[in-house]
Amino acid sequence: MKVGILNVTGYAGIELARILAGHPDTDLVAVTGRGDAGRQLGDVFPHLMGYNLTIQPEITESVDLVFSALPHKASAEACAPFLAGGVKVIDISADFRLNNVAEFQEWYEVEHPCPGYVEEAVYGLTELHRDEIAQTSLVANPGCYPTSAILALAPAVKAGILEPNLIVDSKSGVSGAGRGLSLTTHFSEVNESVSAYSLKGHRHLPEITQELKGLVPDDELQVTFLPHLIPMTRGILSTCYARLKPGAFSTENDRAQCLLDLYRDFYRGHPFVKLAQAPPATKHTLGNNDCILFPTLDDRTNTLVVISCIDNLVKGAAGQAVQNMNVMCGFPEDQGLRALGLYP
Amino acid sequence: MKVGILNVTGYAGIELARILAGHPDTDLVAVTGRGDAGRQLGDVFPHLMGYNLTIQPEITESVDLVFSALPHKASAEACAPFLAGGVKVIDISADFRLNNVAEFQEWYEVEHPCPGYVEEAVYGLTELHRDEIAQTSLVANPGCYPTSAILALAPAVKAGILEPNLIVDSKSGVSGAGRGLSLTTHFSEVNESVSAYSLKGHRHLPEITQELKGLVPDDELQVTFLPHLIPMTRGILSTCYARLKPGAFSTENDRAQCLLDLYRDFYRGHPFVKLAQAPPATKHTLGNNDCILFPTLDDRTNTLVVISCIDNLVKGAAGQAVQNMNVMCGFPEDQGLRALGLYP
Amino acid sequence: MKVGILNVTGYAGIELARILAGHPDTDLVAVTGRGDAGRQLGDVFPHLMGYNLTIQPEITESVDLVFSALPHKASAEACAPFLAGGVKVIDISADFRLNNVAEFQEWYEVEHPCPGYVEEAVYGLTELHRDEIAQTSLVANPGCYPTSAILALAPAVKAGILEPNLIVDSKSGVSGAGRGLSLTTHFSEVNESVSAYSLKGHRHLPEITQELKGLVPDDELQVTFLPHLIPMTRGILSTCYARLKPGAFSTENDRAQCLLDLYRDFYRGHPFVKLAQAPPATKHTLGNNDCILFPTLDDRTNTLVVISCIDNLVKGAAGQAVQNMNVMCGFPEDQGLRALGLYP
Amino acid sequence: MKVGILNVTGYAGIELARILAGHPDTDLVAVTGRGDAGRQLGDVFPHLMGYNLTIQPEITESVDLVFSALPHKASAEACAPFLAGGVKVIDISADFRLNNVAEFQEWYEVEHPCPGYVEEAVYGLTELHRDEIAQTSLVANPGCYPTSAILALAPAVKAGILEPNLIVDSKSGVSGAGRGLSLTTHFSEVNESVSAYSLKGHRHLPEITQELKGLVPDDELQVTFLPHLIPMTRGILSTCYARLKPGAFSTENDRAQCLLDLYRDFYRGHPFVKLAQAPPATKHTLGNNDCILFPTLDDRTNTLVVISCIDNLVKGAAGQAVQNMNVMCGFPEDQGLRALGLYP
Repeated sequence: MKVGILNVTGYAGIELARILAGHPDTDLVAVTGRGDAGRQLGDVFPHLMGYNLTIQPEITESVDLVFSALPHKASAEACAPFLAGGVKVIDISADFRLNNVAEFQEWYEVEHPCPGYVEEAVYGLTELHRDEIAQTSLVANPGCYPTSAILALAPAVKAGILEPNLIVDSKSGVSGAGRGLSLTTHFSEVNESVSAYSLKGHRHLPEITQELKGLVPDDELQVTFLPHLIPMTRGILSTCYARLKPGAFSTENDRAQCLLDLYRDFYRGHPFVKLAQAPPATKHTLGNNDCILFPTLDDRTNTLVVISCIDNLVKGAAGQAVQNMNVMCGFPEDQGLRALGLYP
Repeated sequence: MKVGILNVTGYAGIELARILAGHPDTDLVAVTGRGDAGRQLGDVFPHLMGYNLTIQPEITESVDLVFSALPHKASAEACAPFLAGGVKVIDISADFRLNNVAEFQEWYEVEHPCPGYVEEAVYGLTELHRDEIAQTSLVANPGCYPTSAILALAPAVKAGILEPNLIVDSKSGVSGAGRGLSLTTHFSEVNESVSAYSLKGHRHLPEITQELKGLVPDDELQVTFLPHLIPMTRGILSTCYARLKPGAFSTENDRAQCLLDLYRDFYRGHPFVKLAQAPPATKHTLGNNDCILFPTLDDRTNTLVVISCIDNLVKGAAGQAVQNMNVMCGFPEDQGLRALGLYP
Repeated sequence: MKVGILNVTGYAGIELARILAGHPDTDLVAVTGRGDAGRQLGDVFPHLMGYNLTIQPEITESVDLVFSALPHKASAEACAPFLAGGVKVIDISADFRLNNVAEFQEWYEVEHPCPGYVEEAVYGLTELHRDEIAQTSLVANPGCYPTSAILALAPAVKAGILEPNLIVDSKSGVSGAGRGLSLTTHFSEVNESVSAYSLKGHRHLPEITQELKGLVPDDELQVTFLPHLIPMTRGILSTCYARLKPGAFSTENDRAQCLLDLYRDFYRGHPFVKLAQAPPATKHTLGNNDCILFPTLDDRTNTLVVISCIDNLVKGAAGQAVQNMNVMCGFPEDQGLRALGLYP
Repeated sequence: MKVGILNVTGYAGIELARILAGHPDTDLVAVTGRGDAGRQLGDVFPHLMGYNLTIQPEITESVDLVFSALPHKASAEACAPFLAGGVKVIDISADFRLNNVAEFQEWYEVEHPCPGYVEEAVYGLTELHRDEIAQTSLVANPGCYPTSAILALAPAVKAGILEPNLIVDSKSGVSGAGRGLSLTTHFSEVNESVSAYSLKGHRHLPEITQELKGLVPDDELQVTFLPHLIPMTRGILSTCYARLKPGAFSTENDRAQCLLDLYRDFYRGHPFVKLAQAPPATKHTLGNNDCILFPTLDDRTNTLVVISCIDNLVKGAAGQAVQNMNVMCGFPEDQGLRALGLYP
């Protein structure tokens, strides 16, 4: 199968190229990039020197599937012609994630360039929408924070055991901020420091809310989401807090086990979600597509606490995109994604 | 004034020696340490080579005040003779922090070596107990996490505007785990990774609860506290969440300003608590005694979110100890503590 | 082919398990470890949870090849029975690296436990000894620093263009110091700092000298080697300096090109040595078996400068061990080693 | 004494403001900056909120001394009017460091804006030129790498014991690259990586050569200098190599002691150069003005190896500038510079 990558020069695009190099069923035939168009992929990124590809301004080759790692708005604009031409599209930008076009426009402060495709797009959190993904031509690949948060909370939300106020406190490595330059990602500013950001509301919040509400359409549900930047390159750890409803678990003695069973049942048959036996570290997911969950109860305060770890560029971006491609195209779900994490 | 340090070879003790070197009213005349007894302080710690002091097994000199940076239990045992001899003591260990001896024994799983001194000890969060500190001979210097959490929440708790369930999500640099060796602090394990720990309950929780409850003895109040280890040496950022009571602020329009005024009033006259105009980073406190607070409201969910930043070894340990000494001894509160933070 | 790993719980052993998981021609059937014997491999190392293996005190299964990641002396002792039993052995320790037993004993300050095997051991720098490795049953896998240094200097030394005094200044990530605890690898001590160590002579020096001298047995040659510890987990960058002999290159105008050709010719047909077009970074080798070289001339001082980058745990340990296994067993040299580096 | 800072918004300028806050004999009355002109200093840099200063486009106040932390060329242009007006100037840029205007123009590829002042400028490596600094109105503050390299080699060069080829291999934290944005200083690119740069020649090379040659005008002397970027914020460690001349030290037995005496004698009376008893780490200089040296001999190869550690923003920039001001103005040489290093 011939695939292309729009904007290979950002971190998600680069990571797609890395993963696809080990995917036996695909052939990466075209990559685009703005600043570096005309250069060899391997000259710009030495670890990709095995590819014999020139970075192009646009994809001119015939392809069966396109990954877009363009920024929002530009992404939808670039994807539309492929969709019209019958090419499958996996969009890593935010353009097709929100079902509600008005909500998209409010949070992203742009007019949606092709609202007509929003309805047919499937939100590509594979574990929640695998069947629809298998049927669609357009997947909206989730944001990195939403991936970590939704997977952490979905089983408990679905089970109806939580009070409506959910708190998601996320800690992210700096690569999540992309390859674009800013003081916020300047080494000397961010190293040996931690800070919270987007206190007025982060754009990933509506995704989290949409997907969790989608599990219990009749229930009330509110999410407080706060991202933090920590001095490491890759990885997101989300700590999720929610109070348990009275009588959430019937037998007092088995609450921890009931919780574990609830999560185990929910993710049965999903190869990339793993339940840890001890509090996990993001290092356990470095370079692979796993999401490691650790659900636990704070009995003192009757609070559910779920720890969730992913590699933001893999399960939080390129890996999940390949997972979605596998599902869309009938390949084994973990094709090209079986490499173990890099530790230490 | 002649002062001594018990256990100068841990990070809190080393930091005390650093700060006292710039304190004009004290003379550090004795330091102890176990493994390195008999060696020159400056041979073990090159940055302290200006001192002409030998690390001793015990303090034999006459001193006016002793800082103890010993581990819990050993600390109380070592402090008792000084207290009996009329020497002022600032104990950086946990031994005298909890008013309730039984609670101490439950959390620390040891018998308290000298419960008789618990009652006269003052919890050394200077901003809450300055007057009592000025009168006492025994200060229990707070833990690093409690310092960050209590200062973040005290004004709002005192004002009675919060629902009873408080969440404190803290991110700490690795020096908080001390100088003792463990896999948890082994560079290759902790670098490029983040993890939560003490999910069954961290020993700093009862301190936080005791002090916040102390502000509103008649109210219910529950704290969920979760610490995280992040790959940096110094700094704690605590993110504190609490839902606002209905009608917490009278005029809808001025809620943000009301909140700011509440915090400003509470900390008026306290030189080390600063209110930030933008979300702060721990880097802004590197090496100094400041606690920088950023209180804000999440209007979507009616939640108070307060960010709090300190250097865990300064305001979270040695700096606050010196601040307490200044108050106990009638020196200016910021004597020896005026050096600006190191940035970047 | 059935393989075992002695001491899977150190960083080289863990990395072997990671790499072998993606090797199609081998089956890892037994792993040993001291402290963690009796535990499941995946419980100790969550990223290895795909293995269904118990850590054992000794290998009792029948195996075709054994990797030893034990410390020196213990390694030779444990390998001897396998060698006697006709099992192939790749020893990652230093025990069989030095041809001269007396020199080994001087540098390692122990008696060699089985000097009889020293002669048949082949030094496993695959690029220098591929033919002998294909014939032997015992490979002494090189040290991490020697791998980076010898590959950097071998072409120029072999060509006879250098004055006899070579300087190797190496910068290593902390994982090279292993998983054992020490103040030197304690996060807060090594983070945000750089230091030189082993100024009296590092044990990897005699390996470097032996192999480079082996290329020009009749020439004089002296190596000054100094390792440095820098605050990162993986990676070694060695900077090698040597003055050019008068008339080293015949035509003045083409010196840079001549140098490049010299290196290109030397490494033709060796898949893991790559010549960079720009100064390389260790990040370009993260998690893979490449050695990236950048040879250049300082015309001002007539000095050859070669930069060499490897991942110390891959090409510097476990990856090279697998490369050697491939050569010993007739598998493609890069079997199981084709995954691209993780970037960023 | 009233002082001003030109370009307070770069790292050297910010650090000057930090240090001057603790200097009892000066009053910082004016600071300039381009991007942030019009803003309060404490709003841009929260750790400087104690200052009540507005960042201005130019200094309009009357001042007695100006520090310039502007880029080269712009700096000389901005300094000239102050010099003409009789104001003392300490220029942290490169504009007045090289005695030879043509050499400056070759390396910096600009025309020198005011070559007339070059002759009266004194190279501000305080330990080499203290007497001239005390007499001048214009100090050219040294580069960070030259400070570390020259201090490391000066005693041995002066003593005439070295062969003419000197090698300086430097490892620097990222703050040395300044506050300007670039991929080279983008967190995710530089973190967990090390690389060499400026292999064609770094602009600090001619400074190093000029000053070392100045010590032995009749001798030949060549420097190979190679800088490396390592993942930390502050600190430079330079490793310097030079072969000893035959008969460099008369008595074989005391060579190490002779070397130590040579360095001790050279730096007697210089408060900021310290000789370490064990290999030093840059962490020992964090935030202070020390240069820690560790000279040693590699007897195997008859090579002098000197390790040198500084904080690149203090002794390598702002601290040395204040040291020079102290000497120029008759203050104690260590005024405002006595704070101990921050450890860990």
